[in-house]
Amino acid sequence: MDEYILDMDRENRLGFPEVIYGQTKSVELLTKILRDYQKEGRNALASRLQPEKGEALLEEFQGSFYDPVSGSFLLRKNELDESTAKVGIISAGSSDQYAVNEALYTLNLLNEATVCINDVGVAGIHRLLKRLDDLKKFQVLIVVAGFEGALPSVVGGLLKQPIIAVPTSIGYGVAEGGKSALHAMLSSCANGITVTNIDNGYGAAMAAYRIIQLLQNQS
Amino acid sequence: MDEYILDMDRENRLGFPEVIYGQTKSVELLTKILRDYQKEGRNALASRLQPEKGEALLEEFQGSFYDPVSGSFLLRKNELDESTAKVGIISAGSSDQYAVNEALYTLNLLNEATVCINDVGVAGIHRLLKRLDDLKKFQVLIVVAGFEGALPSVVGGLLKQPIIAVPTSIGYGVAEGGKSALHAMLSSCANGITVTNIDNGYGAAMAAYRIIQLLQNQS
Amino acid sequence: MDEYILDMDRENRLGFPEVIYGQTKSVELLTKILRDYQKEGRNALASRLQPEKGEALLEEFQGSFYDPVSGSFLLRKNELDESTAKVGIISAGSSDQYAVNEALYTLNLLNEATVCINDVGVAGIHRLLKRLDDLKKFQVLIVVAGFEGALPSVVGGLLKQPIIAVPTSIGYGVAEGGKSALHAMLSSCANGITVTNIDNGYGAAMAAYRIIQLLQNQS
Amino acid sequence: MDEYILDMDRENRLGFPEVIYGQTKSVELLTKILRDYQKEGRNALASRLQPEKGEALLEEFQGSFYDPVSGSFLLRKNELDESTAKVGIISAGSSDQYAVNEALYTLNLLNEATVCINDVGVAGIHRLLKRLDDLKKFQVLIVVAGFEGALPSVVGGLLKQPIIAVPTSIGYGVAEGGKSALHAMLSSCANGITVTNIDNGYGAAMAAYRIIQLLQNQS
Amino acid sequence: MDEYILDMDRENRLGFPEVIYGQTKSVELLTKILRDYQKEGRNALASRLQPEKGEALLEEFQGSFYDPVSGSFLLRKNELDESTAKVGIISAGSSDQYAVNEALYTLNLLNEATVCINDVGVAGIHRLLKRLDDLKKFQVLIVVAGFEGALPSVVGGLLKQPIIAVPTSIGYGVAEGGKSALHAMLSSCANGITVTNIDNGYGAAMAAYRIIQLLQNQS
Amino acid sequence: MDEYILDMDRENRLGFPEVIYGQTKSVELLTKILRDYQKEGRNALASRLQPEKGEALLEEFQGSFYDPVSGSFLLRKNELDESTAKVGIISAGSSDQYAVNEALYTLNLLNEATVCINDVGVAGIHRLLKRLDDLKKFQVLIVVAGFEGALPSVVGGLLKQPIIAVPTSIGYGVAEGGKSALHAMLSSCANGITVTNIDNGYGAAMAAYRIIQLLQNQS
Amino acid sequence: MDEYILDMDRENRLGFPEVIYGQTKSVELLTKILRDYQKEGRNALASRLQPEKGEALLEEFQGSFYDPVSGSFLLRKNELDESTAKVGIISAGSSDQYAVNEALYTLNLLNEATVCINDVGVAGIHRLLKRLDDLKKFQVLIVVAGFEGALPSVVGGLLKQPIIAVPTSIGYGVAEGGKSALHAMLSSCANGITVTNIDNGYGAAMAAYRIIQLLQNQS
Amino acid sequence: MDEYILDMDRENRLGFPEVIYGQTKSVELLTKILRDYQKEGRNALASRLQPEKGEALLEEFQGSFYDPVSGSFLLRKNELDESTAKVGIISAGSSDQYAVNEALYTLNLLNEATVCINDVGVAGIHRLLKRLDDLKKFQVLIVVAGFEGALPSVVGGLLKQPIIAVPTSIGYGVAEGGKSALHAMLSSCANGITVTNIDNGYGAAMAAYRIIQLLQNQS
Repeated sequence: MDEYILDMDRENRLGFPEVIYGQTKSVELLTKILRDYQKEGRNALASRLQPEKGEALLEEFQGSFYDPVSGSFLLRKNELDESTAKVGIISAGSSDQYAVNEALYTLNLLNEATVCINDVGVAGIHRLLKRLDDLKKFQVLIVVAGFEGALPSVVGGLLKQPIIAVPTSIGYGVAEGGKSALHAMLSSCANGITVTNIDNGYGAAMAAYRIIQLLQNQS
Repeated sequence: MDEYILDMDRENRLGFPEVIYGQTKSVELLTKILRDYQKEGRNALASRLQPEKGEALLEEFQGSFYDPVSGSFLLRKNELDESTAKVGIISAGSSDQYAVNEALYTLNLLNEATVCINDVGVAGIHRLLKRLDDLKKFQVLIVVAGFEGALPSVVGGLLKQPIIAVPTSIGYGVAEGGKSALHAMLSSCANGITVTNIDNGYGAAMAAYRIIQLLQNQS
Repeated sequence: MDEYILDMDRENRLGFPEVIYGQTKSVELLTKILRDYQKEGRNALASRLQPEKGEALLEEFQGSFYDPVSGSFLLRKNELDESTAKVGIISAGSSDQYAVNEALYTLNLLNEATVCINDVGVAGIHRLLKRLDDLKKFQVLIVVAGFEGALPSVVGGLLKQPIIAVPTSIGYGVAEGGKSALHAMLSSCANGITVTNIDNGYGAAMAAYRIIQLLQNQS
Repeated sequence: MDEYILDMDRENRLGFPEVIYGQTKSVELLTKILRDYQKEGRNALASRLQPEKGEALLEEFQGSFYDPVSGSFLLRKNELDESTAKVGIISAGSSDQYAVNEALYTLNLLNEATVCINDVGVAGIHRLLKRLDDLKKFQVLIVVAGFEGALPSVVGGLLKQPIIAVPTSIGYGVAEGGKSALHAMLSSCANGITVTNIDNGYGAAMAAYRIIQLLQNQS
Repeated sequence: MDEYILDMDRENRLGFPEVIYGQTKSVELLTKILRDYQKEGRNALASRLQPEKGEALLEEFQGSFYDPVSGSFLLRKNELDESTAKVGIISAGSSDQYAVNEALYTLNLLNEATVCINDVGVAGIHRLLKRLDDLKKFQVLIVVAGFEGALPSVVGGLLKQPIIAVPTSIGYGVAEGGKSALHAMLSSCANGITVTNIDNGYGAAMAAYRIIQLLQNQS
Repeated sequence: MDEYILDMDRENRLGFPEVIYGQTKSVELLTKILRDYQKEGRNALASRLQPEKGEALLEEFQGSFYDPVSGSFLLRKNELDESTAKVGIISAGSSDQYAVNEALYTLNLLNEATVCINDVGVAGIHRLLKRLDDLKKFQVLIVVAGFEGALPSVVGGLLKQPIIAVPTSIGYGVAEGGKSALHAMLSSCANGITVTNIDNGYGAAMAAYRIIQLLQNQS
Repeated sequence: MDEYILDMDRENRLGFPEVIYGQTKSVELLTKILRDYQKEGRNALASRLQPEKGEALLEEFQGSFYDPVSGSFLLRKNELDESTAKVGIISAGSSDQYAVNEALYTLNLLNEATVCINDVGVAGIHRLLKRLDDLKKFQVLIVVAGFEGALPSVVGGLLKQPIIAVPTSIGYGVAEGGKSALHAMLSSCANGITVTNIDNGYGAAMAAYRIIQLLQNQS
Repeated sequence: MDEYILDMDRENRLGFPEVIYGQTKSVELLTKILRDYQKEGRNALASRLQPEKGEALLEEFQGSFYDPVSGSFLLRKNELDESTAKVGIISAGSSDQYAVNEALYTLNLLNEATVCINDVGVAGIHRLLKRLDDLKKFQVLIVVAGFEGALPSVVGGLLKQPIIAVPTSIGYGVAEGGKSALHAMLSSCANGITVTNIDNGYGAAMAAYRIIQLLQNQS
C-alpha cells in the first residue's frame, strides 16, 4: 500500500502544481512530500499548517517561509514586484487577513505579484469608493468577507473585471462558520460574481491564475 | 368552547390594536371578527389574505380597501399627507413590494404617513447614494431586501436613525425562502440594525410605531 | 413612489446590461420595462418566465424569442456562428438543460456564440473523456450538474481553462433543491473551480462574459 | 498594504464611534488601535476579549476597565447615575449575564446609564409581573434570553416601548448555539419586537442608542 | 403479498386501538380497512383525510362523522359529558384549531371527554391568567401553539399537572413548518414539559390517554 | 442589580423545587445559591457540573453527593428502596449512562426510588424482550437512547404505560449531537410517546414526577 | 448539440442497463429514448413518471406496463416465479408501497423475482418476528421505512444477510421529506446496514443486483 | 443495575461478533469488557479509542495491537495473506486513512485479508484509471472519500461489483463534518451504490462481510 501518490504531472496538464493540504498531515509526512518536490527542483506550498508544524518545517527546510496568519508554508518565497500585479485582493475587515494571505502566498508560488487592500467593508462604504480607481487597474479581483458577506455585491456593481468572492468563517451567531457570508455571495444581485468554499483563499488564487494563464496564452 | 377571543384591550395597554392574521382564517371567521371591530367603531387590518378572500371582504364591507400585492385588507384606508411622513421605507428591488406594502398599510391603520423608495439595491449603489439627503429627513427607516440582503448594511453605515431591517423570501437557490437575507441582516457589520422575521412588513411597521409613539409621548 | 428604477447606465459601467428577473413580475410590468429598453434601441433579456407569461410577451413583441425550457425571453435572438464560440457549456444530464439554456441565451444577448455538450455525467466517464480535445478549444467552460454535482471536479482535473460550476436543483431526497450539488462543487478537490448559486445559468454566463471582456480589452 | 483602516469619521456621520471587535485580533494589534483612539482623546471599547487579552490590556492602559463576564474592555469606564437611565435591560436567567454586560458597557461608552433586571424568565412569570411598574419608566427595553427565548413575547404583550430582543447561545440540545431562542424571538406573536444576532448585546445597545439619539435630537 | 396487516391485537396489548393514518391512503383502501373494524364491532378513527376523501367516507358509512378542520373521520362520534373531562386542551391562537381537533377526536374515540380553551397565547397573557382556576381541574393538559411556541413554558411554570406540548406548523419565515415552536418547547425552562412531533394532536391525545389509563388502573 | 432571584415558591406552586443549572455558573455563585437552600432546610440539586466544580462543592458541603458521570450534585442523597420504585429507566447503550443518571438523581431529590435497566438497544432485541415482565411493573417509563433512537418505538408498541423518550447526543456523523435520535423519537409510529430535549434526563424525571404526583393526589 | 447521449455500453461494462429518470423528461423525449432501446431489441425502465405520462406511454408502446403507485414504466414486464426469489423486500407501512414497487419493477427489468412483505413496522414488532423464518431464505434484503426509520436496525440485529435500507419520505413534522428515516438508518447500531438516498427503491434494487451478479459469477 | 450487557450470542445469530464502541467508554470499563471476551477465548475489537486509552490497553493486554490513525484496538491482529483478499478499499486522499484503517482492522478481526489503494481521487482521474484492472479482481469494493465525495460515482460507473461508499469528515467550509460527501454519495447517478454513516469504516467492513459470508455459504 502506497502512503501517498503525488500528481507530479499536474503542472503539465493544468499549468499549475498540486498544493499540499497540510491540516491533517503529520510533520513527518509533510517532510517526505516536500523532499520529493525539492528533489525535482520545484517550489511547493503546504497550506493550513498549525503553528508548531510550520515552525518544525522552517527548521527542516533552509530558506523556506511560513506565514502563521494563514498557516501557509513555501519552500521558497518569490520576491515579486507589486507594481506589476494582475490580481487585487480586497477584504472587508482585518479579521479576514488569514484568507487574504492564503490567496497571496498561493499566487506567490505561481510567481504572480498581488496587491491587498484591507478593511474596506460596506459599513463604511466611503473607504471602498475612494479606492475605485486603484481597483480598476487589476485584471482579476478576489473579494474576501465574513459576517454578512456584502462586499462582493457592492464591488460587482461598480467594477467590470472577473470577481472571485471568498466567504470567511469570521462572525458569530448566525454568521458562525461562514454560511451567512457564503449564502449572501451566492445570492448576490450583482452580475457574474462567482464564489469559492468558505475560507478558500487558495482556491480563489487558483481560479484567478486560470484566468491569467488564459490571458498569457492569448497574448 | 369560544371560537376566538379578541384582545380589545390591547390598544389601551400598548397604544396600538391587534391585527388579524388572515392567512389561515376563513372568510366567515374574518367577517365575524371584522364586524366586532366595526361595532366598536374601530378600524381594523387583516393581513396575508389570498385574493379571493380579499375580494369577498371588499364586497362585504362598504368603503373598505384591499391591496392584492401584500394581501392587506383595511376596513377603511386613511388619507394621509406624505409630506409629514416620519417613516421611510427603502427596498432593494421591485419584487420586494409585497413586504413594503404590508408595512405601508399597517402604518396607514395607525394613521402614520409613510414614503416608499423602491429599487435601490446595492448592485447599483449610486441609486441609493443619490437619495441620501431625502432619507435623512425620516425619523425611522424600514429597509426591505431579499436575495443577499445587503442593503441594511450599507444604509446603516450611512445614516444615523433607527433602522429596522426586513428580509424577504425573494430569491432562489440558497436564497429561497429568505434565510440568506435574514442571516445577512442579523450578521450586519453596520451598528445597531435590528431585524424582523422574513416577510414581516407588519412587524416592522409596529416596531417603527413603538418608536414614534415614544417621540409623541415625550414631546 | 416610482414603481421601478432601471439601471440603464450599467452597460457603460460594467460592459453588460441589466437583465430582468421575471419570476415574480407581472406581464404588465414586464411589458412596460421591455418597452423602455426597446425605446432606447436595445435588446433585453427577461429570465425565469412562466410559460403563460412567455407566450403573452411573444405576442406583444414582434420578432421576439422565448425558450420555454429555461423561461428566457429575448427581444431579439442574435444569429451567431458556433464555430467562433469562446464559451463551452458542459452538462451532466439532459434534465439540466434548463440551466444550460439560461446561460446560452444570456450569452446570446451579449452576442457571444456558445457550444453546448450535454449528457456527459461522471457515471459514464468515457463520454467525457472522448470529448476532451473539443473542450480544449474553448476559453471558458461552464459546467452544469445536479444530483451529486461531481462533473466539475473531474473536468477541473483534466482541463486548464477557467471553470464556472453551476449546480442545478435536479435530484430527489438529499439532492432535492440542489444543495448536494452546490456543496460538492464548493468542496471540490480540483483546483480553482468557482461556483454560482443553484440554477444560476444567467450568473455563470455573466461571469464568463467578464472574462471574455478582459480578453478583448487586452488584445 | 495597510494593516487596518479606522473609520474615525463614523462619530460625525452616525453619532457613535466604531467599536473594536476583539475576538480574533492580537493584543499587539489591539494596543496599536487603542493607542490611535487615545491620541485622538477618545474613549474606546474593545469587545469579546479573552481573559488573557483583557488582562494584558488592563496593564497596558492605565485607568482602563475590563469585564471578564462579557469580555468588554473600555479605555475608561464612565461613572453614570442609574436613576437617569433611559434604557432597561431585562434578562431571563443569570447565565445570560455576559450578553447583558456587553450591552451595558457599550451604553457606558456612549455615556448612557442603564438599569439591569435579571432572572425574570417566563417559567416563573410572577417575577416579571412584579416589576412591570419599574419597567414602564424606561424609554427603550433590551430583553435578553437563551433556551426557548420566550421572554420578549411576554414583555412585548405587556409594555409599549420599543423592545430589542437579544437571543443568547445559552442552552443545550436543540437550543445549543442560540438558534431556538433566535427563531422564537423572530416568530414572536407580540407586535413590533425586533431582534439582533445571537449574543449581540453590543448591537442591541447601538440600536437603543439610535432611538435615544432621535429623542435627544427632537427635544 | 398482503396489502396491509392490521394490528387488531393492539387494544389488548396497550389498551387503545391502532389509528389509521389517512394522508396517503386511497378511499378504496380506507373503506376496506374501516369495514374490517366495523365487522369486529369496533369504532375506528382515520386521521389527516383530505376533504374529498372525508366526504366520500361520510357517504359510505352511515352515522359516521368527519371534521374538515383536522381531517379526522370517526365511524361514530361518542356523545360525552364535558363536565367530566379529565383532559384540557389549551391553544395559543385560532389558527391552531386543526391540531386541537385532532387531539379532541382521538380522545373521543377513546371515550374521553375533553374541554378546549382557545386563543390564550402569551402576547396577551391576561387571557391565560384569568383561566388558571379552570385549568387546575384537569388531570392532564395538552398545550398547542405555533409561531414561537411559548405557551407551554408559561403554563408549565404555573400549573403542576402533566403537560404535553404540541407544536403546530402555523407561522411564516423562520417559523414555517413548525420547527421554531418545536425547538422552543423542547428547550423550555419550565420543568417537566414533554413534546410531540409537529401537528401531532393525535399523539398528544394518546400520551394523555396513557396517563388516564394509569389513573384508572390504580383506582 | 440582583445577581439572581430564586423561585423559592415553586415547590408550593408546582410540588417540586427549582433545580440549579450548573453548566455556566461559577463555584462561587453555586455556593451562594446552595447556602440559600441549606438555610431554608431544603435539599437541592445542581446539574451539569464539570468535575472540578463538583469536587469543589463536595468539599464545601459536608454530607453532599456528586456523580461525575452526569455532573449531578445533591446537598444530600436520599436512601431509597428500589423495590418500591414507580419509575423505570431503560437505556439503549452503556454510553447513555450520563442521561440515565441525571434522571436518577433528579428523582432522588424528589424522594422517588428508580430502577435502571441498561444496554437493551434494538440491535439485539432479545435483551429487551426478556425484561418485559419486569418493565410492566413500573408506572412510568423513561426510555433513553442515542444513535438512531429506535428504542422508544419498540417499547411503545409493547407496553401501555406513559413513556417519556430521552434522546442522547451519543453518536457520530449524522447522529452527532443527538438530532437523529430526537427526530426518530418525535416521528415514532408507536402511539403516545412524548419526548424531551436532547440529553435532558432532568426534564424527563420532572415529567415523570408530574405523573406520579397526580397518582398520589388521586389516591 | 445532441439532445441526449445513451450509455448503451453500460450493460457490457456493468452487467445492467441504464434506467431512464423520467421525472423531468417530456413524453416526447421519453418516447424517442424508449424507441432507441426498442430498436436494439432491449427492454427498458423509465422511473418516476407522473400518471399522465405513464398513460401516454402505455398507449404508445404495445405490451408495455405502467405502475401508477411508483410511476415505473416497463417496455415489457417479465413474468417471474416468486418461489425462486433471491431478494426479499420488507416495508414498515402500507404508505411505503411506492418505494417497494420501484425496487420490485427494477428487479423485474433485471429478470429477478422478488417477494414483498409489507406492514411489519416496529410499533407492532410481533408482526416481524413471526416472519423471521421466511426472511432467512432470501439472499439479500431490502428494508423500506419512513417516519422514524427503525425497521432496518431491528432486522439487522436478527438476520445475517446483506441489508440495504431505503428511507422513504413518508411522515410529517420532523419526518417530512424523509431526513429522519435516513439519519436513523445511517446511525443504526445494527452492524453492516448500508443505505440509499430517500425514496431510492431503484438504487436499492441495483445494489441488490450487484450482489446477485457476484453470486452468479462465482457459482 | 447491570453496568453493561454483552451480546455474546451475536456471532451465532449473525456470523460476526459485537464490536466495542470505545469513544465514550473509560479504560476501566473497556478492560472489563475485553477481559470477558478473552475469557471466552475470543478476539475482540474496540473502536475509536483516543491515543492515551489505546496505550493503556496495549500495556494491559499482552500481544494486543493498537492503530493510532483509526483508534482501533485488537486483542490480537491476525496475519493475513493480501493476495487472497476479497475486499478492496479505495480512498480519495491520504487524509482519509483513518476511515480506511477502521475498515481494514474490522476485516482483520473477521479474518478477511484486504488491499488498500490510496490517493486516487477524481481531481487526477488517471490515477484511478490506471488501477482498473487491479480493482476488477476484488469481490467487494469499499470506496472512501471526504470533501466532495465524488469517487464512488466514478468507480460505480466503471466497475460492476457491490460498492460500499464511506464519506469522511475531511474537509472545511461546507464540507466540514462530512455532510457534503455523504449527500453526494447518496445522490450518486451511478447505479447501485450504497452508503454508510460519515467516518463509518467499521460499518462498511461489516457490510462487506455480510456479502462475503453469503458467498461462502453458497459455495
